[in-house]
Amino acid sequence: MGRWPEGARTRLEAAALALFVEQGFAETTVPQIAARAGLTTRTFFRHFADKREVLFAYQAELPDVVREVMADAPQSASALEVISVSMRKLAETKFDGRRDYLLAYQAVIDADAGLRERGLRKMSILSEAIGRGFRDRGMDDLGATLAAHTAVTVFSVALDRWLAAVDETSLSVHVSDTLAALQSLTTPEA
Amino acid sequence: MGRWPEGARTRLEAAALALFVEQGFAETTVPQIAARAGLTTRTFFRHFADKREVLFAYQAELPDVVREVMADAPQSASALEVISVSMRKLAETKFDGRRDYLLAYQAVIDADAGLRERGLRKMSILSEAIGRGFRDRGMDDLGATLAAHTAVTVFSVALDRWLAAVDETSLSVHVSDTLAALQSLTTPEA
Repeated sequence: MGRWPEGARTRLEAAALALFVEQGFAETTVPQIAARAGLTTRTFFRHFADKREVLFAYQAELPDVVREVMADAPQSASALEVISVSMRKLAETKFDGRRDYLLAYQAVIDADAGLRERGLRKMSILSEAIGRGFRDRGMDDLGATLAAHTAVTVFSVALDRWLAAVDETSLSVHVSDTLAALQSLTTPEA
Repeated sequence: MGRWPEGARTRLEAAALALFVEQGFAETTVPQIAARAGLTTRTFFRHFADKREVLFAYQAELPDVVREVMADAPQSASALEVISVSMRKLAETKFDGRRDYLLAYQAVIDADAGLRERGLRKMSILSEAIGRGFRDRGMDDLGATLAAHTAVTVFSVALDRWLAAVDETSLSVHVSDTLAALQSLTTPEA
């Protein structure tokens, strides 16, 4: 894809989010989104099936990003190391520096039951992609499934804490802290 | 509540599930469910808001069941012990012995995107209830949230494996096995 279509996609995402925040998801139409982005409705539909898809386009990219990062991790790394490296990389490349955008995004999702459920479904798709990544590394099915759930838990708990915090701590630091807390929880006392 | 209303509720749940399996969720109407149960539509609406609620009534009870079990666990128990005891108790009291019913239930949910998303949302409500249970036991917010996610992960992974298995292993044994696998995953190698 050339340079302009990518630009159009990003502009449509930003325009949609701004309108959802201003006037609500249900009240916003595709022609309004296209107009705000300075584009035609036809261009909108070249990029997205509907206004719900434009909202989840960002989240839809995450499985591919994570799979790439996991494939780069050395084969000798433990599951916990892979979770740590890949979730911190995801935080750094796709989240850190975009906190205001993500806060607005979260507010739109939280305001609509259908969107909340769709968001949970997208998290489950991410979990399945991570599970495949662990199976590709040779883990058995149970271990890969649990590792994937653990990765998603660590990331989503860290994300909630990062979005709720008032300080400047990065999401990748929250990911490290959350993983450490999970380890102390699941390690039997000596 | 007296004996008959409870009986009506259970009969409506069984009738609804049978019809959803036979002819699909979208194609089934409330009057059909009531007729199959030998009851009136009016009785249906005394128990459930709509046909979706009758499907999720069973799952909706789980948070209360779990909270009760957690409150019974000794105060000295570690988070892992509480997860183990409460998830095994949930398995024994609400799931073991009902595998055929739950397989049919799962097939109906899996066949409809809206139902899948609603099911995920119900799991998130269960996770929130477990988190409150851990906070009531004096855990800090991060620990309680992670313990709740861990409990739900262990239970739902064990449930999937139990439903997919061809042998007679009980769900409570799958819960124990899954918890052990999670511990070996998150314990750093010596």
